[in-house]
Amino acid sequence: MNEFSILTQERFQLIDITEKVEKVVKESGIKDGLVLVFVPHSTAGILLTENEENLKQDWIDVLKKLVSGFDFRHNKIDDNADSHILSGLAGQEKNFPINDGRIVRGIWQQIFLVEFDGPKSRIVTVKIIKG
Amino acid sequence: MNEFSILTQERFQLIDITEKVEKVVKESGIKDGLVLVFVPHSTAGILLTENEENLKQDWIDVLKKLVSGFDFRHNKIDDNADSHILSGLAGQEKNFPINDGRIVRGIWQQIFLVEFDGPKSRIVTVKIIKG
Amino acid sequence: MNEFSILTQERFQLIDITEKVEKVVKESGIKDGLVLVFVPHSTAGILLTENEENLKQDWIDVLKKLVSGFDFRHNKIDDNADSHILSGLAGQEKNFPINDGRIVRGIWQQIFLVEFDGPKSRIVTVKIIKG
Repeated sequence: MNEFSILTQERFQLIDITEKVEKVVKESGIKDGLVLVFVPHSTAGILLTENEENLKQDWIDVLKKLVSGFDFRHNKIDDNADSHILSGLAGQEKNFPINDGRIVRGIWQQIFLVEFDGPKSRIVTVKIIKG
Repeated sequence: MNEFSILTQERFQLIDITEKVEKVVKESGIKDGLVLVFVPHSTAGILLTENEENLKQDWIDVLKKLVSGFDFRHNKIDDNADSHILSGLAGQEKNFPINDGRIVRGIWQQIFLVEFDGPKSRIVTVKIIKG
Repeated sequence: MNEFSILTQERFQLIDITEKVEKVVKESGIKDGLVLVFVPHSTAGILLTENEENLKQDWIDVLKKLVSGFDFRHNKIDDNADSHILSGLAGQEKNFPINDGRIVRGIWQQIFLVEFDGPKSRIVTVKIIKG
């Protein structure tokens, strides 16, 4: 198992971690299997999408609207019900095949850590299973 | 492969199954790998979120709103189009790394069976793969 | 690793690929493990739901509404911000247990390739890991 940390700057933010995940896979020397990319957090997520600046802002607009217009009960305890719910909906883990020592992914399918309650220090866990 | 059953009481309900899943992982004796938590159902799901009573209710409010205001065609056959769609959006499986014989997860990241068409008897399948 | 192609006909479309995935698992001869069903695309997805014609249309109604009412910035570059966002929310991969040589799944839990930006030729990657 391998981990790395990411420092986020905004409350909502998409950060491309593709290179960091690919480095872990390459350094493992494993040629065939799958890789699980996981965050041990309930107010952050992992999403696969195109790394394009406008699209990243569009994503945040849609995510915010999904949780707007509610009077959240949890916010009396901790003002981040929206963060928890978006993290759950986006998902906190994604899996990829590994083939010929490389992650199988599409050309516009980058791996993002998504921050829903930043700024914070976040951990990304990369677990590789041999095929 | 290991399975356990959960009896749900409400149409929409979040039930914390973290201890049950952790017991399966512990009893497997497997120290390193990944665990897939899966429901063989299309009107229930698996979500990771904080186990806090207010938040659980906030979750249900958001989920219900996502599928409100539609005149679902499927409901002429079986009155649970909303259940199917929420199950698909929440997801029916989640994966975790196993490290040192324990599930890797955050402190506020509990594992929930989510019922979208209860009350029903539900099966949770836990599949462990060695690393 | 195994791949097959699917030609989609509509901009938004759900296509049942259960038989194709089950054929790959059967032909692998692997009796115990897990299977990752993955699309190397950021404007398509994998969803588990019931294969019922009305429900498939209901799904499309809900998905379209999730991304309606926005003036997407990305659309000035490429008119498919909605496709990227729905693909990310639906998810581009799902895992199943394999037991006794068969995929574990519910009776109403079919595997769908979901097209969000068709018509296109899509690849489905099936990766099996021994248990």
